[in-house]
Amino acid sequence: MNPRALFLNCTLKASPRPSSTQALIEKVVEQLKPLGVETEVARVVDFKVAFGSGIDEGHGDEWPKLLEKIRAADILVVGTPIWLGERSSVAKMVSERLDATTYQMDDRKQHEMYGKVGGAVVVGESDGGQASIKSILYDLSIAGFTIPPNADVYWTNEAGLGGPYIEAEGDSCYFVNERVRWMAHNLNFFARLLKATPIPTNLDHLQQEAKKVSRPAKPIPPRG
Amino acid sequence: MNPRALFLNCTLKASPRPSSTQALIEKVVEQLKPLGVETEVARVVDFKVAFGSGIDEGHGDEWPKLLEKIRAADILVVGTPIWLGERSSVAKMVSERLDATTYQMDDRKQHEMYGKVGGAVVVGESDGGQASIKSILYDLSIAGFTIPPNADVYWTNEAGLGGPYIEAEGDSCYFVNERVRWMAHNLNFFARLLKATPIPTNLDHLQQEAKKVSRPAKPIPPRG
Amino acid sequence: MNPRALFLNCTLKASPRPSSTQALIEKVVEQLKPLGVETEVARVVDFKVAFGSGIDEGHGDEWPKLLEKIRAADILVVGTPIWLGERSSVAKMVSERLDATTYQMDDRKQHEMYGKVGGAVVVGESDGGQASIKSILYDLSIAGFTIPPNADVYWTNEAGLGGPYIEAEGDSCYFVNERVRWMAHNLNFFARLLKATPIPTNLDHLQQEAKKVSRPAKPIPPRG
Amino acid sequence: MNPRALFLNCTLKASPRPSSTQALIEKVVEQLKPLGVETEVARVVDFKVAFGSGIDEGHGDEWPKLLEKIRAADILVVGTPIWLGERSSVAKMVSERLDATTYQMDDRKQHEMYGKVGGAVVVGESDGGQASIKSILYDLSIAGFTIPPNADVYWTNEAGLGGPYIEAEGDSCYFVNERVRWMAHNLNFFARLLKATPIPTNLDHLQQEAKKVSRPAKPIPPRG
Repeated sequence: MNPRALFLNCTLKASPRPSSTQALIEKVVEQLKPLGVETEVARVVDFKVAFGSGIDEGHGDEWPKLLEKIRAADILVVGTPIWLGERSSVAKMVSERLDATTYQMDDRKQHEMYGKVGGAVVVGESDGGQASIKSILYDLSIAGFTIPPNADVYWTNEAGLGGPYIEAEGDSCYFVNERVRWMAHNLNFFARLLKATPIPTNLDHLQQEAKKVSRPAKPIPPRG
Repeated sequence: MNPRALFLNCTLKASPRPSSTQALIEKVVEQLKPLGVETEVARVVDFKVAFGSGIDEGHGDEWPKLLEKIRAADILVVGTPIWLGERSSVAKMVSERLDATTYQMDDRKQHEMYGKVGGAVVVGESDGGQASIKSILYDLSIAGFTIPPNADVYWTNEAGLGGPYIEAEGDSCYFVNERVRWMAHNLNFFARLLKATPIPTNLDHLQQEAKKVSRPAKPIPPRG
Repeated sequence: MNPRALFLNCTLKASPRPSSTQALIEKVVEQLKPLGVETEVARVVDFKVAFGSGIDEGHGDEWPKLLEKIRAADILVVGTPIWLGERSSVAKMVSERLDATTYQMDDRKQHEMYGKVGGAVVVGESDGGQASIKSILYDLSIAGFTIPPNADVYWTNEAGLGGPYIEAEGDSCYFVNERVRWMAHNLNFFARLLKATPIPTNLDHLQQEAKKVSRPAKPIPPRG
Repeated sequence: MNPRALFLNCTLKASPRPSSTQALIEKVVEQLKPLGVETEVARVVDFKVAFGSGIDEGHGDEWPKLLEKIRAADILVVGTPIWLGERSSVAKMVSERLDATTYQMDDRKQHEMYGKVGGAVVVGESDGGQASIKSILYDLSIAGFTIPPNADVYWTNEAGLGGPYIEAEGDSCYFVNERVRWMAHNLNFFARLLKATPIPTNLDHLQQEAKKVSRPAKPIPPRG
């Protein structure tokens, strides 16, 4: 069965405002399709996602809708604009919400994102591409995603007042065209590989083993 | 006239839920009071702040209410819990919104935050204090705030499952008690110093000078 | 054939001074051995590694000796102490030197680190574990390494003056014992998986394709 | 008396190799001179600086020579190229060595860098300006330096293969020309202000006060 890829566009702007992040996401989508990967893009601010750290924060929280899409996907790519040299607050909020899935284990005795593959798409006017990617990929790794080499693409312009991706024709930038291809091929290969050969690690069993050789662990009350 | 300090508590949890960030903020407040500094604390999630990059995003956006409080203050301290080793999405959202004040200049020919002093209060279970502070202080610096030495305090516990500030009695930690004092004294000194001797830099004039010796700058369309 | 793991200890202190980083590295080694992984640990400051960005900087540069060890390994784990909330300058130097391997492609039309698996071991007194890991793992990813989920372990103590890993008995910390196990199992699984099923991506071919649809790329002169 | 500014060029390349970092440093120097600031530039790799965390690591360590220059300056600006999205390993090494000055207090009962003003100059091909600045400025702040608003300048080119500062005529970039001016004026103002009105905070006294209300602090043995 073909792998499915979900892109979360973490722009600050609601639809239908034009989004450079969307434009770069679409370039990756375009490369994934001929490889047989099914794709979907969701713009996070079009959903009423609550701040918080639970699976469902209630009061009409629409994170569970996005979480369903993530659960159905083999590949998750977080797309974000850069603000002040870092991923957007929306992208950080997505990490915080995703983190709740690591508080529990599923039937495989793994966090539920184990076996999925992660990537990042980042767009900015002039700086902060790698700082953003670093945080996105590490947060996905913490959640259980596998990170292939060259699983990301970013575009930024000359320092200061360079102007955004769409207007500056980032589309025709060689670096971008190279990276969207490398990224698509690696995401596709790893998604198929991990579907065919699932990660066998029994996290729960190793946890029990660790407990036996450790000082008692304190319980974790809610943070804030 | 005595300086005024505003603390923005960027916890993910709405009032009246207990907040470790709030508890550490109050320790700093306690040190500022005897120095004659007037203090106020606002919990950001109690306001309906919109994602965005404008001064007012409309549709009932309550950022302008917080911005009024910031304008009235001489000292701004951003307080945040740590999630996944970085400041909260709420704290990042505050930076994004504050950034809009740098798109314009006031009568002094400066960004309006010039002359104010910035600081950070960070609380986490086990890691990420300095990564959070670094981002907060730099974003304040970009907005025009001056950063005194030792303008921050953080508390984190032993790696992994250490438990939060309130329960772990971070309150009695020597490092915390030392830093809240250093921080309070330095914030107070710099706030009074810059009120007495305002920064004279004419940003606008220097901008004109820079234009004369530069390639033409491209206009900045909205990001996303 | 069993996979081989190389650990680079990036402490600032030359042998035979005791190193907390070494102590935590040895805990991971201990978990890898029963899985059939052969291990080696090298302390970087015991070699005369030059600052620079080439494969060999000449003048007695001993980086090539370490690079040979990396080439012979299936798993590379960078171990580092934390200084000022980030990995050590030695660990950063290792990244800079490793980067030179991405300037060229091998017979597979890949960067030579493709197919290898990366991980991180980080030790600090009180903060900066995740900031350090994030940079290490991303730099390995850029170099071509695959990053499994939970491929890292860190230990830090309570904020401020908590004391180091060895003295504070980080060894008996549940979080550490859990993570060294998760890490060992995942590194081992992925190393064997990628040896059995190599990444097929032809970077060179995709680069040629990218060139056809892009503005001309400017040549890259040396940085500095 | 006029303030003195020291620039530490943290390029990976020894003299007399051309350095883009040097070129951007010289633009700032040019702006400081008409303000009456005396300037000096030192290239760190031209000195035999040892890895370590002490004031003097012995065995011919030349850090003490650089430390003397820092002690004689009112303004310290760290200049660095970007490698893999972060400041160079040489710049990180400078932070590690400078940190040793915070282990002791001088006659004023302050860390010896108190009263000095810090700044950053960063040059890269395509990304990582702000990530580098953030780390530099925060490390200077920890050491006791005051950070004025707009105390930094960076230049980076379009993502990927943009080419370096000198060749890409970063010199004529409006953003760069604006920032070197803002930076020079603010560094100069704050250096003169803090010479005229020294920071009065008695760190030692506040430390004693903190001890009285805290759990006993554990001693700090050497890290690694």
